[in-house]
Amino acid sequence: MNITIFEAMATKDKNKAENNELKKIIAHAKEYGFVYPSSEIYDGLQAVYDYGAYGSELKKNLKDLWWQTMTKLNQNVVGIDAAIFMHPLTWKASGHVDSFTDPLIDNKDSNKRYRADVLVEDKAAEYENAGDKERADALLKKLGQLLEAEELEAVRELIIEEEIACPISGTTNWTEVRQFNLMFDTQVGAVAEDSSKIYLRPETAQGIFVNFLNVQKTARQKIPFGIAQIGKAFRNEIVARQFIFRMREFEQMEMQFFVRPGEEMKWYEHWKETRLKWHKAIGLPAEDLRFHDHEKLAHYANAATDIEYKFPFGFKEVEGIHSRTDFDLTQHQELSKKKLQYFDTEINKNYIPYVVETSIGADRLFLMVLSNSFTEEEVQDGEKVKTRTYLKLHPAIAPVKAAVFPLIKKNGLPEKAKEIFDDLRYDFNMIYEENQAIGKRYVRQDLIGTPFCIAVDFQTLEDNTVTVRHRDTTEQLRMPISDLRAYIGKEVSFSTILNQL
Amino acid sequence: MNITIFEAMATKDKNKAENNELKKIIAHAKEYGFVYPSSEIYDGLQAVYDYGAYGSELKKNLKDLWWQTMTKLNQNVVGIDAAIFMHPLTWKASGHVDSFTDPLIDNKDSNKRYRADVLVEDKAAEYENAGDKERADALLKKLGQLLEAEELEAVRELIIEEEIACPISGTTNWTEVRQFNLMFDTQVGAVAEDSSKIYLRPETAQGIFVNFLNVQKTARQKIPFGIAQIGKAFRNEIVARQFIFRMREFEQMEMQFFVRPGEEMKWYEHWKETRLKWHKAIGLPAEDLRFHDHEKLAHYANAATDIEYKFPFGFKEVEGIHSRTDFDLTQHQELSKKKLQYFDTEINKNYIPYVVETSIGADRLFLMVLSNSFTEEEVQDGEKVKTRTYLKLHPAIAPVKAAVFPLIKKNGLPEKAKEIFDDLRYDFNMIYEENQAIGKRYVRQDLIGTPFCIAVDFQTLEDNTVTVRHRDTTEQLRMPISDLRAYIGKEVSFSTILNQL
Repeated sequence: MNITIFEAMATKDKNKAENNELKKIIAHAKEYGFVYPSSEIYDGLQAVYDYGAYGSELKKNLKDLWWQTMTKLNQNVVGIDAAIFMHPLTWKASGHVDSFTDPLIDNKDSNKRYRADVLVEDKAAEYENAGDKERADALLKKLGQLLEAEELEAVRELIIEEEIACPISGTTNWTEVRQFNLMFDTQVGAVAEDSSKIYLRPETAQGIFVNFLNVQKTARQKIPFGIAQIGKAFRNEIVARQFIFRMREFEQMEMQFFVRPGEEMKWYEHWKETRLKWHKAIGLPAEDLRFHDHEKLAHYANAATDIEYKFPFGFKEVEGIHSRTDFDLTQHQELSKKKLQYFDTEINKNYIPYVVETSIGADRLFLMVLSNSFTEEEVQDGEKVKTRTYLKLHPAIAPVKAAVFPLIKKNGLPEKAKEIFDDLRYDFNMIYEENQAIGKRYVRQDLIGTPFCIAVDFQTLEDNTVTVRHRDTTEQLRMPISDLRAYIGKEVSFSTILNQL
Repeated sequence: MNITIFEAMATKDKNKAENNELKKIIAHAKEYGFVYPSSEIYDGLQAVYDYGAYGSELKKNLKDLWWQTMTKLNQNVVGIDAAIFMHPLTWKASGHVDSFTDPLIDNKDSNKRYRADVLVEDKAAEYENAGDKERADALLKKLGQLLEAEELEAVRELIIEEEIACPISGTTNWTEVRQFNLMFDTQVGAVAEDSSKIYLRPETAQGIFVNFLNVQKTARQKIPFGIAQIGKAFRNEIVARQFIFRMREFEQMEMQFFVRPGEEMKWYEHWKETRLKWHKAIGLPAEDLRFHDHEKLAHYANAATDIEYKFPFGFKEVEGIHSRTDFDLTQHQELSKKKLQYFDTEINKNYIPYVVETSIGADRLFLMVLSNSFTEEEVQDGEKVKTRTYLKLHPAIAPVKAAVFPLIKKNGLPEKAKEIFDDLRYDFNMIYEENQAIGKRYVRQDLIGTPFCIAVDFQTLEDNTVTVRHRDTTEQLRMPISDLRAYIGKEVSFSTILNQL
């Protein structure tokens, strides 16, 4: 390797800093009820996670906001909720049965399995880090050509040529390269002759495509129109990593927008812009978001871009906007022998619509929002400098909207505070807490991102006013109890976000 | 058979009437965008369904209402969202690996497979229909004893003794009886030695049990407290039937309430009463609901009841309330070797909590609400009598809250109507429609259960008032545009339901 010691150290330090930031977020998520490893008492299940009390509320808020953005803001977008199980021919039509695969290779000495393409990509990254960008690019180009041509034996030869060794055994004693399908499968039906292999859907989009005409007709839509869906999808990832960024079970929020052929680029641009605006509206800074237009397009696409966010581990895809042409509907029409055409009365023509898709991972969105909101600030505490940690979540998506505290646990303050709590809890997700010093209670709400803390003190008993503490500034505002509903309601309403779009 | 011809005919007619009612509901659900068969273009997938534009909204409203009822009304109930994939030992601990089975038997002549217990139960029903209740009871008792003792060979002998023939072949040429596990399984991980069989969860409850301590600590709960969850579950049912009543993929809404041992019966009664009240509050008539207390209890329960609803096919379970003792937590503690105990500061004692569970199927709830709301009324239309069909859904759960119609499509009426639509659509799920006669537009909203139709006419242009038509009465009320938000808001708010609880 030509890499200098200084460069190696810099890279290592950078990786370490990134890891530290991610580690802090993972620890916070576990400690404060956002995300736990699945089945943790059994030492977890790799690449599967559970959402806790505050995590499930935050995730639900993000999903609800997306759903409302799609179906309320757009008169021509309706929702569906298709099953995870689908007829297996669906995945034949979509191409997943034949080509939703990763090329795998085993090292014979360590018995460890790797993605052959990732081994070569890592090697290319080594060249680039060492300053030899030309060699890196040449290697990646060659890899792309071999994979495209499905020349798996040549990929193996490339690995051996490049002297890529197994990190465990240190040898280049590799097996052949084989394609491994990422779909999970299971058997449905007990009767031997009826039993058949079905798949757990690897994407939600196909549930929309097979229902395209059902929805168009029953919801009386005209092109252009969209169908939105939120649901689980499953991929047997070889290398699952980075917390909830890449999981084997994950949740997608996809919207397929059906357009007249030839008008897809107009809508592609529309949805690119619309979706980026949404991310900014929920509080992501413009400088941490960027488009990454695809140079190499999937076989079904004629334009594609990712909205990337600057995660602690670098800019990574959160949402994809893809112009999928009529590929999927055409495939389904061929395999099902059912006409999937639309009669456009305006131009008096029958056609298979083109599709522009927006596809976002709900878990990635969650991780983006959590990463962005995780804030550590140095604050003066008397003579000492302390670190104040809080989640700077947009009030509309925060899991808990307001907490109500009596200043102390006697003299009628708890009764008054509970009265306020009972009056508001039908409208907002609220917490009531009366134990420990009020300062500690504020800190706890900061840690789960509660935007408002309502304190009931002795003045409250006299004039029916309370203090409302704001999470981000820690400033307190005095206001009549009767103003609380409207004051909080305005801040936590989805409308504050929807109105910006 | 001793059954008289009259009885046979009466039963047949009754079944036919029930089937007709169910068939009507199924047809309505498909025609108006509520429920379609999954992957219908590929001729469907047995016992799997998709929710359409209005079905997905209705289901979402029901789930959201349940979630809010649990987590907002009860300060000591918090939510979680655990993954479908869990560590396989979870299902060993819960007993599902060993005993979540159905006894199956094949007829050698027809090659058809049946549930052995259902064959015997059907025979007992024949006896009872023929008036011989004693013989029916004796048969059922014997079946219960044999199954309990797992004497499968004796079950086979019983079938042959009772001369139960295959309905297809007509013979009693039966194979042995074997236990068939209802869990779906799949392989996770690509590396041969790491690959392992995992299950699709057959119930959501275990995701709560394994997270019990995580949630208790991070959400700072004290016993008694509950954990609520909504999520998909999967069962490889042999005989899946009755539309969305029994599906292979379905959605559960479960709440596990953790209590001090010895106090479980108090909480069992509390949740029985609370849950029944909820069903009434969303609009189900008291006379169509009943409790069915279990006489024979599952091995983990010390009390159990079902809330049953009178479906078109008879009274059937919608929700179960079960006192599950400490069975699950004890099992998990044993298998995981992790302490699952709670230290109760009030009585200064460590213990494994007892659990009272409320478990409702979201799809059954949907079918109950749809069945109950489906209304056909004879109305006078001039000289003729017509049938008016509408869905009498509670406004808070109706998929669309209001539709806005200009009386005609000119003279500025559409512009005014759109103005109203744009002003309200951030707050409510709305539809705007301007085509066809207004009478037809009313009918369409009736069919999907929209509670309010707002019509803009010439008077609107003069005095800014509109008519609001009520779905159930078809009566129209004139009101200022400025009153609409508050008027509709009050009716469609979840608070109108939550306040009754």
